[in-house]
Amino acid sequence: DPNLKIFSLNSNEPLAKKIAQEVGVELGKSSVKKFSDGEIQINIDESIRGADVFIVQSTSAPVNDNLMEMLIMIDALKRASAKTINLVIPYYGYARQDRKSRAREPITAKLVANMISRAGATRVLALDLHAAQIQGFFDIPVDHLMGAPLLADYFLSNHLEGDAVVVSPDHGGVTRARKLAEFLKAPIAIVDKRRPKANVAEVMNIIGSVKGKRAILIDDMIDTAGTITLAAQALIDEGATEVYASCTHPVLSGPAIERIENSAIKKLIITDSINIPEEKRIDKMTVVSVGQLIGDAIKRIYENKPVSPLFETRFK
Amino acid sequence: DPNLKIFSLNSNEPLAKKIAQEVGVELGKSSVKKFSDGEIQINIDESIRGADVFIVQSTSAPVNDNLMEMLIMIDALKRASAKTINLVIPYYGYARQDRKSRAREPITAKLVANMISRAGATRVLALDLHAAQIQGFFDIPVDHLMGAPLLADYFLSNHLEGDAVVVSPDHGGVTRARKLAEFLKAPIAIVDKRRPKANVAEVMNIIGSVKGKRAILIDDMIDTAGTITLAAQALIDEGATEVYASCTHPVLSGPAIERIENSAIKKLIITDSINIPEEKRIDKMTVVSVGQLIGDAIKRIYENKPVSPLFETRFK
Ligand SMILES: Nc1ncnc2c1ncn2[C@@H]1O[C@H](COP(=O)(O)O)[C@@H](O)[C@H]1O
Ligand SMILES: Nc1ncnc2c1ncn2[C@@H]1O[C@H](COP(=O)(O)O)[C@@H](O)[C@H]1O
Repeated sequence: DPNLKIFSLNSNEPLAKKIAQEVGVELGKSSVKKFSDGEIQINIDESIRGADVFIVQSTSAPVNDNLMEMLIMIDALKRASAKTINLVIPYYGYARQDRKSRAREPITAKLVANMISRAGATRVLALDLHAAQIQGFFDIPVDHLMGAPLLADYFLSNHLEGDAVVVSPDHGGVTRARKLAEFLKAPIAIVDKRRPKANVAEVMNIIGSVKGKRAILIDDMIDTAGTITLAAQALIDEGATEVYASCTHPVLSGPAIERIENSAIKKLIITDSINIPEEKRIDKMTVVSVGQLIGDAIKRIYENKPVSPLFETRFK
Repeated sequence: DPNLKIFSLNSNEPLAKKIAQEVGVELGKSSVKKFSDGEIQINIDESIRGADVFIVQSTSAPVNDNLMEMLIMIDALKRASAKTINLVIPYYGYARQDRKSRAREPITAKLVANMISRAGATRVLALDLHAAQIQGFFDIPVDHLMGAPLLADYFLSNHLEGDAVVVSPDHGGVTRARKLAEFLKAPIAIVDKRRPKANVAEVMNIIGSVKGKRAILIDDMIDTAGTITLAAQALIDEGATEVYASCTHPVLSGPAIERIENSAIKKLIITDSINIPEEKRIDKMTVVSVGQLIGDAIKRIYENKPVSPLFETRFK
């Protein structure tokens, strides 16, 4: 269909290609480079007048560059008379500053949402936002996909659900763990982090029974991997037979890879919402693609069909 | 005055310090760092409730980082109940994409202006915008300062105006050259770049007489220094006795320093609108500070006095 165009920016071209393939179109012709002084230069090399345009971009590191690519692309498409500008954001960065927890803090998750609408995007397709409330930060429609069914699919196809317990690494993630547990028909447990007194190391208590079970940790993102690797050890100490860790967004900054490599985690299951460069890949890592999930959603958006029900039922 | 606060971000702290000194206040206490994944983390360590706050930030390289620092700081100040948020932008980047010259081009100068207002800034103080029209891209008041009087001051105090001719490196810069020429009571000349036919090197013609004269080139910015160094050679070839080059914004990316070092330019006079790291400084370079100019303007804005007349008359 010549009215449906998908463009990739620089953060995650491998995923954009998978998405385009799923939708059955070629990626739009464009290039995103930098001028000598570091300013972003975008060239769109085909007409998009009157088209429904989808931009695939994760605001992963380098986050400020990736964000500006996104905003400049939206501006260019708007001025080139795109009919709709649909932003596909597999990983939405700056999401953890989503409330004022101390005085004079910014709320970057809202700031970025405002920038996106102001630049001229007409719709957002996101995947596992750090907090579901972030949908409300946008003044444009947001479709919100979940990675849990895909992760469930991995555990089910590898017959790992039998003696499993799904574990949330903190209290904020229980809903997500519950979701995965439903798919796997497994019980849940929760890691309860507590600091006995100030300046004393945190203690990890496990709420729920993990003894003799395969523990499956799930989180929305793994950044420096401090929490998840400590949680894995706590689970082993409590008698879990082995620990799998899974998340939608492999941020994996700083010491993350080294920590995971040296941890009690047997296998790490992640999605390709963030592109992992070759030098960060380790044997323990299995990548599940969200290409089909997002591709399906794009087709449904383009055809004005509801997006969510499909993925709610698909893996049940 | 406890109601006037000046904060520096990371692009140009030396200039921010000079500005604060001129205004007679200490820089506000804040820190701008990065989280492990590269997201910007801003802490404002003093109350700004009800204050008139000035943020000093140039959107020079790394431009996307510096821009995001600015937007996040505005967001934090807005949520912390600043009375006014005044953005001091000594160098406004992304300004050269200020019109669609080809199909499907973005207009980044407008995009950034929109981002700044949307984030919550209430006023902008800028210096030598690449095009004066960019003032109109903002939906908030803009005060626009000129560097030419300061550059004039340099040439006058060094008694270089006597047998001078002020030269614009292109037709777009004639107004600026005319301004400097008025201060120096000197004639002007213009470099007329022309490509005789496609795929043939450009020829630089000089319109106006430069023979036996000291040529003073002036531009708003010097980026890769290609144009300015070629113009300098053309002026020497036409019989100029020596060539000075000056600009407000020393972008100086890529091969700029090497080109200037090896060029016919005797001396390069720039301002500190962009901070030049130690390793880029060369003997030919003289830096004139805009600290007093901007400090004066901030005092006048704070006192609700008109900003421009002062600087129009000051050096005459
Ligand atoms: N990029 C980041 N890296 C590390 N910590 C962050 C980042 N952004 C925000 N935070 C902090 O993470 C906390 C929120 O995380 P959470 O409780 O998981 O929503 C807040 O204290 C933030 O200051
Ligand atoms: N950061 C940049 N570095 C080099 N060239 C640029 C940059 N931004 C815009 N341009 C180009 O510079 C031209 C405009 O420059 P000017 O004629 O001086 O206003 C346009 O062709 C732009 O595509």
